[in-house]
Amino acid sequence: MPTPANRQWILNRRPVGAIADDDLLLRESPVPVPGDGEVLIRSRYLSLDPTNRTWMSDIDGYMEPVPLGAPMRGLAMGEIVASSAATARPGELVMTLGTWADLFVAPAASLTRVTDLAGVSPRDYFAIFYLMAPTAYIGLVEIGTARSGETVVVSAAAGAVGSLVGQIGKALGCRVVGIAGGPAKCRWITGELGFDAAIDYRSEDVGAALRHLCPNGVDVYFDNVGGEIMDTVLGQMAVFGRIVECGMIASYNATGTDPGPRNYGRILMKRLRVQGFIVTDYGNRIPDAHKAMQALHAAGKLRWRVHEIEGLEHAVDAVRLLYSGGNRGKLLVKVS
Amino acid sequence: MPTPANRQWILNRRPVGAIADDDLLLRESPVPVPGDGEVLIRSRYLSLDPTNRTWMSDIDGYMEPVPLGAPMRGLAMGEIVASSAATARPGELVMTLGTWADLFVAPAASLTRVTDLAGVSPRDYFAIFYLMAPTAYIGLVEIGTARSGETVVVSAAAGAVGSLVGQIGKALGCRVVGIAGGPAKCRWITGELGFDAAIDYRSEDVGAALRHLCPNGVDVYFDNVGGEIMDTVLGQMAVFGRIVECGMIASYNATGTDPGPRNYGRILMKRLRVQGFIVTDYGNRIPDAHKAMQALHAAGKLRWRVHEIEGLEHAVDAVRLLYSGGNRGKLLVKVS
Repeated sequence: MPTPANRQWILNRRPVGAIADDDLLLRESPVPVPGDGEVLIRSRYLSLDPTNRTWMSDIDGYMEPVPLGAPMRGLAMGEIVASSAATARPGELVMTLGTWADLFVAPAASLTRVTDLAGVSPRDYFAIFYLMAPTAYIGLVEIGTARSGETVVVSAAAGAVGSLVGQIGKALGCRVVGIAGGPAKCRWITGELGFDAAIDYRSEDVGAALRHLCPNGVDVYFDNVGGEIMDTVLGQMAVFGRIVECGMIASYNATGTDPGPRNYGRILMKRLRVQGFIVTDYGNRIPDAHKAMQALHAAGKLRWRVHEIEGLEHAVDAVRLLYSGGNRGKLLVKVS
Repeated sequence: MPTPANRQWILNRRPVGAIADDDLLLRESPVPVPGDGEVLIRSRYLSLDPTNRTWMSDIDGYMEPVPLGAPMRGLAMGEIVASSAATARPGELVMTLGTWADLFVAPAASLTRVTDLAGVSPRDYFAIFYLMAPTAYIGLVEIGTARSGETVVVSAAAGAVGSLVGQIGKALGCRVVGIAGGPAKCRWITGELGFDAAIDYRSEDVGAALRHLCPNGVDVYFDNVGGEIMDTVLGQMAVFGRIVECGMIASYNATGTDPGPRNYGRILMKRLRVQGFIVTDYGNRIPDAHKAMQALHAAGKLRWRVHEIEGLEHAVDAVRLLYSGGNRGKLLVKVS
């Protein structure tokens, strides 16, 4: 059976809890036509991120929910195949917030070009440098204001953002402790990425491990998960500590109201600063973050893993993998 | 019966829940002798503050707990009656973190002089300008970064700090909504202090009132209470809002673990900044805050109420009054 001209994932129903099979439907659809100032992009890779799940819900989030019946939203990298914009030419390799489709239309103003970076493929540039690296860098350095000698704890430490956060922390001269699920991830972050220590939340008492590993408390907690783990770290923060609230995957599938952190009062007693952070609010800081991360890469101090799944038809399964912790590194779907 | 030479309140037992009658005991005691660099102060006024209760508990707070058997700690204003310090003379009127006693010893280095301020008695200078005014000013302006045109919500709005916060907010050009208990307090803050609106948490649905009064969300929440009210305001914050965590009186008497704020996830979605704040961390900013507050006073834009209770023997009852909301303005105990 030949691949149809275009396929797109449509949000059919808002998921309740984990994504059910018919919450999103893969539909054949006409090839869209770019309007004035727009381009048509043939997708090569989709980025699958925990936040995708939040866009499916009808919540008061940081972006509008994807409307029911509309194509699912996601970061994508691909080639311009038609352009109605003076600033974009067919053949250019670009990245943008697109849709889960073979072919999609985007405003030329939204495009970022894939930069030629020594030893980095376009795929990995998209996977790591496009938005993950600025998220980790701006989050840890500007929001968390991590300084040499401080103790940094990061959750989802083997994930796309967390693994970068730890390496940036080490480059800054921090002591870095990562929280991850399972011995393989813990070995990877300490063995290959240079984290000082890892806590396996699946087999260890996170609070006890933190008391042991961070006896003077945590100066910066880079939170990617929320929930119980966040509450536990909150209870171990040092005076004047900072919490970067970058992700709360523990609650994105929640059906009821989450209980809040019992240790919230520590914010006052320890004079903590807790700040919510979405990288796209810091567009003007992204170029500097890119420079810093490219310098780290040039110095041989940056490692990453990309977990690639082949086929647009597996996009939903890929998101589910993020929620089971089954991915190994930054998760992409190869579209073409 | 003549007043004995000295009396002091001793922490006899750590309170569980509300302060019980024999948790603190008023004892006759010898007049202490100042050591090198210290002064002996005859107390005129004690400042009673919600935080006093936290010092009685064996918690990991922002200061060490008062040891059992030791005199209770508190802000005091009085006259130096003996000095073993070159920098302090008998007869000077000074303020410091002292103890609940007729006479107590303090390091000369800890003393702040009562400043002569037009139309302000030494008592009111102590009650309002010493630490309440810098708390309100630094908290709202520097921690909360409130700006003209923004919506500020403050809880315990008729209290010592809250009533000042609202007036500073109005001077900055903010829209100010106060949350207070009972119609008299609500009338006072809107009628005399110039708040734009008041919410009576005892008779109103705070969430519904906020949705009505702040349809575009809350830019700055100055929190003096914590608990349910904080959680409710957290759910109504605007994008990039700031929460100044200055007090959590709702939890200081708690015996179990408080449930945490269910709306904690809003910190991420709305990219909020939540910061714990204790004014004594900002000693180098206090002189500027004093200048700003004195200018506000000179311009006739600052009103306050002092609730005076006579007699050191009523110190514990006075603290209880703070927890029942029975005080009207800044609470002092007149000692002599």
